[in-house]
Amino acid sequence: MVAQADSEFLFEKVALIGVGLIGSSLARAFRSRRIVRQISVSARSQATLDRVLELGLAESAHSDPVKAVEGADLVILCAPVGTYDSIASVIGPHLKPGVIVTDVGSVKQAVIRDVDQYLPDGVHFVPGHPIAGTEKSGPDAGFAELFDGRWCILTPPPGADHRAVEAVTELWRRCGSMVEIMEAGHHDKVLAITSHLPHLIAYTIVGTATDLEESERAEVVKFSAGGFRDFTRIAGSDPVMWRDVFLNNREAVLEMLQRFSEDITVLQRAIRWGEGDTLENLFFRTREIRQGVVEAHQAGSFDPREPKADQ
Amino acid sequence: MVAQADSEFLFEKVALIGVGLIGSSLARAFRSRRIVRQISVSARSQATLDRVLELGLAESAHSDPVKAVEGADLVILCAPVGTYDSIASVIGPHLKPGVIVTDVGSVKQAVIRDVDQYLPDGVHFVPGHPIAGTEKSGPDAGFAELFDGRWCILTPPPGADHRAVEAVTELWRRCGSMVEIMEAGHHDKVLAITSHLPHLIAYTIVGTATDLEESERAEVVKFSAGGFRDFTRIAGSDPVMWRDVFLNNREAVLEMLQRFSEDITVLQRAIRWGEGDTLENLFFRTREIRQGVVEAHQAGSFDPREPKADQ
Ligand SMILES: NC(=O)c1ccc[n+]([C@@H]2O[C@H](COP(=O)([O-])OP(=O)(O)OC[C@H]3O[C@@H](n4cnc5c(N)ncnc54)[C@H](OP(=O)(O)O)[C@@H]3O)[C@@H](O)[C@H]2O)c1
Ligand SMILES: NC(=O)c1ccc[n+]([C@@H]2O[C@H](COP(=O)([O-])OP(=O)(O)OC[C@H]3O[C@@H](n4cnc5c(N)ncnc54)[C@H](OP(=O)(O)O)[C@@H]3O)[C@@H](O)[C@H]2O)c1
Repeated sequence: MVAQADSEFLFEKVALIGVGLIGSSLARAFRSRRIVRQISVSARSQATLDRVLELGLAESAHSDPVKAVEGADLVILCAPVGTYDSIASVIGPHLKPGVIVTDVGSVKQAVIRDVDQYLPDGVHFVPGHPIAGTEKSGPDAGFAELFDGRWCILTPPPGADHRAVEAVTELWRRCGSMVEIMEAGHHDKVLAITSHLPHLIAYTIVGTATDLEESERAEVVKFSAGGFRDFTRIAGSDPVMWRDVFLNNREAVLEMLQRFSEDITVLQRAIRWGEGDTLENLFFRTREIRQGVVEAHQAGSFDPREPKADQ
Repeated sequence: MVAQADSEFLFEKVALIGVGLIGSSLARAFRSRRIVRQISVSARSQATLDRVLELGLAESAHSDPVKAVEGADLVILCAPVGTYDSIASVIGPHLKPGVIVTDVGSVKQAVIRDVDQYLPDGVHFVPGHPIAGTEKSGPDAGFAELFDGRWCILTPPPGADHRAVEAVTELWRRCGSMVEIMEAGHHDKVLAITSHLPHLIAYTIVGTATDLEESERAEVVKFSAGGFRDFTRIAGSDPVMWRDVFLNNREAVLEMLQRFSEDITVLQRAIRWGEGDTLENLFFRTREIRQGVVEAHQAGSFDPREPKADQ
């Protein structure tokens, strides 16, 4: 299944179920790096299916996911995680032994719970999550280099087929990613703090600002370059995708939120009592973490200037 | 004082007290757009003074701010706001009638309280705050276009000299900014939500992650591309500058923090009880705010890819 030389395709036919930011970025990477020979896709709306064909991202596009998985040797779920249960129940009976099923969902324990039950014997499930993304959605938002230099976490259950895990690992490597294997529960904890809580906080603070009186609300947008704008970017992320993330990683998110709330209470006190040292000490520590992120080449790049008109 | 034609200098000699990100960006804009004829600077360390001269950003650099303001017709305070009281007490007696004093500090009521008391009669104080910045510090971090298309808020006290306000307004316009005049207390409230609270939250969450066990901490950096990295950027901002901001805008920050805490409690409940609609509704609302920020051209530009090696 794994090709011998890089010039060979890794898979003959891949089915992408859901083809928004992540799915279309995969399709672009598969095409430009000649990773798979043939791509079929399924999505909810006809508009997305049409657009994907227009962009030349797939050989075939189907509203029925069963049609999309026909003859595929790799199936990748790229829809919001709340849809996985019903998608798996529909395509499960049509998967042949030897087929590999993987996904890109931002939570992993719930995905395993929802998907595994519908997969027939001999179908290999290798859950995955690329730690890469933007706040944009839909097939036009994707680009081939999204996964370059980013980590992809795989959470194969105990006893997973070794060759299937290897094949999915190689797939992500060819997309430019580094691969890390970990236990699903551990993934959900780590991502609760590195991704889910940050999004929840950003949504909250932008919401707090929205609840101000009308006149102040206009000013919030006008003067957003002082820091607020960065939170609006994150809080501009897809509402359905994120609703599903929070509903499906409840425990870990609530635990991290509890820790965060305690920590903010400490700062609140420090501000109230004018304890400058407490503030400064923390701010020096967090600056070191930033340095670590930059040195790990995981920072992306922010330019305070507006994008050029031609971009 | 205000020049008649754009080709003329607006001021003969400007003194910048503090010449880090903001001060050096001003110096660069003043030079490249021929806004002032001569620049003198003062900073705390010899290293900064040397570097500023090396970069060609000033005609003279002095550790003693009194030397820097000698013969200046405009003085701009560009140090952390906690230093304004002592700087003003030192330079105050040496300022001649007709001189304009302004600043770039992120809070305004406290700055007026600290500075005004030391200024002799006939010296015009026009407090200001450019809503522009990055997380970097020091004279190498500045660039001439930092203020392009950004708002600068001026908070002249009642009865302020009309021509002085006009001159400072024109200065910021020539730096590329739009100018808004408002009352200092209102400024402090608006900035508490658009800038101070976002920074506080970012510092907190990065701190929460730092407090995890050693092994998890390494993973936090490694997998930061899921959203956390954006908070680390903000939490990488200058510790001293931000300590001073929180200590000097206590009331407004604590009030906004209170609102934020209430809002996050609502979301916490929604997650706990699986109320997807509550989450989704909020997330759709916040996406609209993001749209507003982009349409107002205040979004800056984020690229999820790493900066090119040559940048
Ligand atoms: N965005 C990120 O930063 C990021 C990062 C890592 C992982 N992920 C994960 O990647 C997955 C997709 O996210 P995304 O950002 O690519 O979302 P997206 O841009 O909103 O795209 C979602 C895609 O799923 C399709 N879809 C929705 N419901 C479906 C259903 N019931 N059956 C079939 N297709 C359906 C949508 O079709 P229509 O276009 O027709 O609505 C769309 O093509 C999620 O599980 C998310 O957790 C996202
Ligand atoms: N950063 C932003 O995004 C931003 C945005 C808007 C407004 N502001 C405001 O702009 C001001 C400066 O911020 P910044 O980001 O430019 O800071 P910065 O890069 O850290 O520079 C601060 C400058 O002030 C000097 N300084 C410190 N203490 C001093 C003292 N006692 N006397 C004289 N100079 C002193 C420093 O000298 P050394 O280099 O020798 O230490 C340095 O040149 C602050 O009031 C801040 O609230 C900042």
